[in-house]
Amino acid sequence: MQVVIIGSGNVASHMAKAFVLNGIPLIQVFGRNSEELKKIAEELNVPYSTEHLAEADVYFICVSDNSIEDVSKLITKKDGLVAHTSGSLPKEILVGEYRKSSFYPLQTFSKSKALDYKKIPFFIEAENEADKELLFELANKVSENVMESSHEKRKYIHLTAVFACNFVNHLFSKAKEISDSQKIPFDYFLPLIDETVQKIHEIEPKLAQTGPAVRNDVRVLQLHEQLLKDESLEIYKTMNHSIKKMYEL
Amino acid sequence: MQVVIIGSGNVASHMAKAFVLNGIPLIQVFGRNSEELKKIAEELNVPYSTEHLAEADVYFICVSDNSIEDVSKLITKKDGLVAHTSGSLPKEILVGEYRKSSFYPLQTFSKSKALDYKKIPFFIEAENEADKELLFELANKVSENVMESSHEKRKYIHLTAVFACNFVNHLFSKAKEISDSQKIPFDYFLPLIDETVQKIHEIEPKLAQTGPAVRNDVRVLQLHEQLLKDESLEIYKTMNHSIKKMYEL
Repeated sequence: MQVVIIGSGNVASHMAKAFVLNGIPLIQVFGRNSEELKKIAEELNVPYSTEHLAEADVYFICVSDNSIEDVSKLITKKDGLVAHTSGSLPKEILVGEYRKSSFYPLQTFSKSKALDYKKIPFFIEAENEADKELLFELANKVSENVMESSHEKRKYIHLTAVFACNFVNHLFSKAKEISDSQKIPFDYFLPLIDETVQKIHEIEPKLAQTGPAVRNDVRVLQLHEQLLKDESLEIYKTMNHSIKKMYEL
Repeated sequence: MQVVIIGSGNVASHMAKAFVLNGIPLIQVFGRNSEELKKIAEELNVPYSTEHLAEADVYFICVSDNSIEDVSKLITKKDGLVAHTSGSLPKEILVGEYRKSSFYPLQTFSKSKALDYKKIPFFIEAENEADKELLFELANKVSENVMESSHEKRKYIHLTAVFACNFVNHLFSKAKEISDSQKIPFDYFLPLIDETVQKIHEIEPKLAQTGPAVRNDVRVLQLHEQLLKDESLEIYKTMNHSIKKMYEL
């Protein structure tokens, strides 16, 4: 059983690494960006190509959602299995005569950040039992946490992840913008941030809420609004409004 | 040197514990809520009162910002030192003939969650050098991370903390609302959330951003908007708008 990864971005490079580290026979990384492909190929000692897609049993398309459809047309092998790694798109976005599937790793991938692949939940959807079993077998080599998921459910998993990860990271960026503007080292906030996350391992987030909005501390809320402008002020108002709604304040 | 803590909420209970654990002579916890005071007093083996405020060298007012002014009037001792623990209010909010100060712990406190006090940054402001030194001495017994901070700077530290902690926790609440609505266990998202935070210990948050907004993935953004309503939709739009602005998309 031989697999190919298509793509050279964050997801592709981590999936390639996870496969190679766990003995999955990755025979090629394929894509457009030869510089990025070369880095992956050299690190993992795997062939790469920008021109000739290798013949494989399973193709993993690890490119941005906007490109999946176009990229999927490059695969001409009819008796192969193709999986995309999108949280939001159905497996039917893939265009070809091969068998279609989805192989969604619930994690945030940045190239320069090492990951413990064992803990990443993988969500799998396939056309038939045999393909599902094959994808489970591969995912189980990488992770301890492999599940089946319909497209309908996967959409909501991805949406939840956007709130719990992408938007959270953006709040960190905005927080750093504020502290940078006053020459306050962002490192001061790391113990607070770590504790914010540790807390929800033990307490429901709704019960862990602290801060001026949940106390309906009008004086502080007004003071803060005076210190903010533009998108930061919009975020401040939107989040406080939502907190007040949640706690019926 | 004897100290009293006024208050029985999250901050008061953790401050009392941090003081007792580190050998600071806490002679009383004082407040209105006898039930909560009793819990703190029994756990730490410290006297409590709802009526007679003990005579002490330093009083720590650990109550919500809205109540600090009123509570400060209860302290009639003229040669004492009084500190509030608010991130946003000036020390001059305190009303009395005593010396005024601020003693701000940068952390999120929930009663049921144990904390490593050593890592909490404390920000101190006082009227004179002697008081500053005294408060540093106390804070240094609790934490490895004690600094001076003007009110002006402290306001921005608190504001940054609201973005990095309070709003982040609310995003976790909203994320859980979405996953609960589809009967998806919120535990699935904990490795993702942990990694989101581990990442910013190594990478600037601005460089760690992932997700559909920073990829300007219009198809996914539209799909997600269709799945959301009310405050969740407002947050979705506000955050995506801010992400696009930050990355000039």
